[in-house]
Amino acid sequence: MTEPLFVIPLWADLTAVALGGVQGALFASGFRGQRRLDMLGVAIIGIVMGMGGGLIRDLLLGVAPSTLQSNWYLLTATAAALVGMLLAGLFARLNNVIVGLDALVIGLFGAFGTSKALVLGLPVVPAIFVGVCAAVGGGILRDIIMGLPVAIMHVSSLYGVAALAGCAVLAALDAFGVDLVLAAIIGVVVTTTIRILAVVFDVSLPEQRMLYRRKVAVETAAIPIVRPSAEPEA
Amino acid sequence: MTEPLFVIPLWADLTAVALGGVQGALFASGFRGQRRLDMLGVAIIGIVMGMGGGLIRDLLLGVAPSTLQSNWYLLTATAAALVGMLLAGLFARLNNVIVGLDALVIGLFGAFGTSKALVLGLPVVPAIFVGVCAAVGGGILRDIIMGLPVAIMHVSSLYGVAALAGCAVLAALDAFGVDLVLAAIIGVVVTTTIRILAVVFDVSLPEQRMLYRRKVAVETAAIPIVRPSAEPEA
Amino acid sequence: MTEPLFVIPLWADLTAVALGGVQGALFASGFRGQRRLDMLGVAIIGIVMGMGGGLIRDLLLGVAPSTLQSNWYLLTATAAALVGMLLAGLFARLNNVIVGLDALVIGLFGAFGTSKALVLGLPVVPAIFVGVCAAVGGGILRDIIMGLPVAIMHVSSLYGVAALAGCAVLAALDAFGVDLVLAAIIGVVVTTTIRILAVVFDVSLPEQRMLYRRKVAVETAAIPIVRPSAEPEA
Repeated sequence: MTEPLFVIPLWADLTAVALGGVQGALFASGFRGQRRLDMLGVAIIGIVMGMGGGLIRDLLLGVAPSTLQSNWYLLTATAAALVGMLLAGLFARLNNVIVGLDALVIGLFGAFGTSKALVLGLPVVPAIFVGVCAAVGGGILRDIIMGLPVAIMHVSSLYGVAALAGCAVLAALDAFGVDLVLAAIIGVVVTTTIRILAVVFDVSLPEQRMLYRRKVAVETAAIPIVRPSAEPEA
Repeated sequence: MTEPLFVIPLWADLTAVALGGVQGALFASGFRGQRRLDMLGVAIIGIVMGMGGGLIRDLLLGVAPSTLQSNWYLLTATAAALVGMLLAGLFARLNNVIVGLDALVIGLFGAFGTSKALVLGLPVVPAIFVGVCAAVGGGILRDIIMGLPVAIMHVSSLYGVAALAGCAVLAALDAFGVDLVLAAIIGVVVTTTIRILAVVFDVSLPEQRMLYRRKVAVETAAIPIVRPSAEPEA
Repeated sequence: MTEPLFVIPLWADLTAVALGGVQGALFASGFRGQRRLDMLGVAIIGIVMGMGGGLIRDLLLGVAPSTLQSNWYLLTATAAALVGMLLAGLFARLNNVIVGLDALVIGLFGAFGTSKALVLGLPVVPAIFVGVCAAVGGGILRDIIMGLPVAIMHVSSLYGVAALAGCAVLAALDAFGVDLVLAAIIGVVVTTTIRILAVVFDVSLPEQRMLYRRKVAVETAAIPIVRPSAEPEA
């Protein structure tokens, strides 16, 4: 359970935690109606988004969670969640900021997950898998805890593919002897770029079958991710 | 994975498991309609509430789950779930008992979680975090498995804050050199008292923003935590 | 984290992973309307069903997940998920295949879970528990991620009892000195047979109380497991 050789410096790890915490709190602050959260709930989502990726990574790797070996991770995630709440109060529409932060966070967690797995000696396929789980795991936990449809499972904008591509590029570069830090930076850039471009150009994966196409488009649009609070009950 | 120095005696640990099992089965027996459970389902919820806190604690600590190193934990949780089913059949309205047991259970799991984390050498902030996760984790698992809104996330009665306060008091007393057993007992009392007072006086955390206040009050009341079975469909 | 004595050969483990992957993808491909998944979503469910049981088993045992120590598990699960998608496109009604595969998969994961727990020295009751969790855990994860009611919790066809019986028979045979491989084979047969017979004869557990019987029957039938896509919104 000692990891003397692990390459991610604390400041980089804490940056990912902080960005995840801000993003989570911004996301959670946006809910109204039945899904509205109190301050503790917003803080929990911030902490889940800041710490979840690292926890899932270390559970999969079978090592004691490194985010719990120091006071700094939780203090950073909590402070970031508070900052996220304040920012949510200052700005009316933060959708672009949330999407951009989200893209960067999945890039960072994916790269750190795959790097750590490679350093611990995992084969390349599981190392990519651990990175993808670390990247998208926080968001899955968030959606489950908030009772939302799990975003990555529904016809969406290449969310998981972006993480997969970045982690695969990282692992491939590492296999060809590229320095791991450089490989990780390239991996972050790949994931973040794909994710942002997917949102900008509204790209989706093909559905597994092309039947009922028109009907699905209507129904997908009808998924009530956030119920408008002005909606009449009856 | 040996923990020779750990201070929680088996009888105390099993008491928490038993109370959690009874509480879980009482809670699960109360459901009607679509969420109604068969006997196995009620037993599963009892086991989840009796064992979940300890499992989450040990996963976060990176040690093999101590509740699976002996036959007694599962036998106790299962027997307690059966007792809970019988009690639910004997009494018509058990709400006070469920709330009281719940307060005691989160106090015990929180104190055991933080104590074990401190004994294993974790810093104080993660040690408190592990205690809070152990205290509320069983309930989160229960709500997710039953398809309910996760209770701790919604405008509620200081559920998580009670656990946080008890675990923080425990860690602070330990830092000032107080005997860990005494500190744990005080932590249990703090958590249980806050949780019961919060229910009695119906205290809530402030919401993160005060807009739409009247509308939210109406909508929150409309969350169908338990659907009355006599409700007409149309 | 080395397990030199563990008896499950790689081909058997990979067979379970492959069958789980095919079954998961068949199951996930069947959804329409709001729950419809894109190709990545179907692949994720296939991987969850192929790998979930083994991951849960190893988390409970406190060992590094063996499914991540080799490239073969993920490659097998992914290929199996693709095969499942193709099969779902070829056949119109696969319900019998899905039920049969499911029965075999829970038998295999249950037997492997209990075997590994016994080999690692766990007492008999937790060893059975680990097997049951490994058997049903993949399905619970699948239901949670897809936003479905957790199948094992609702008045259903002896799903968990089948796993429990097979794992208990395995552990009992092992306790009486029967060779573990033979015991595991018998355990798989017991679980698979009970599960298939339960579906064929539509057996259920008794509900925990017999009141409201007629109403429950109506309401249970009304759970919209799969919403018909032709349903009008208004």
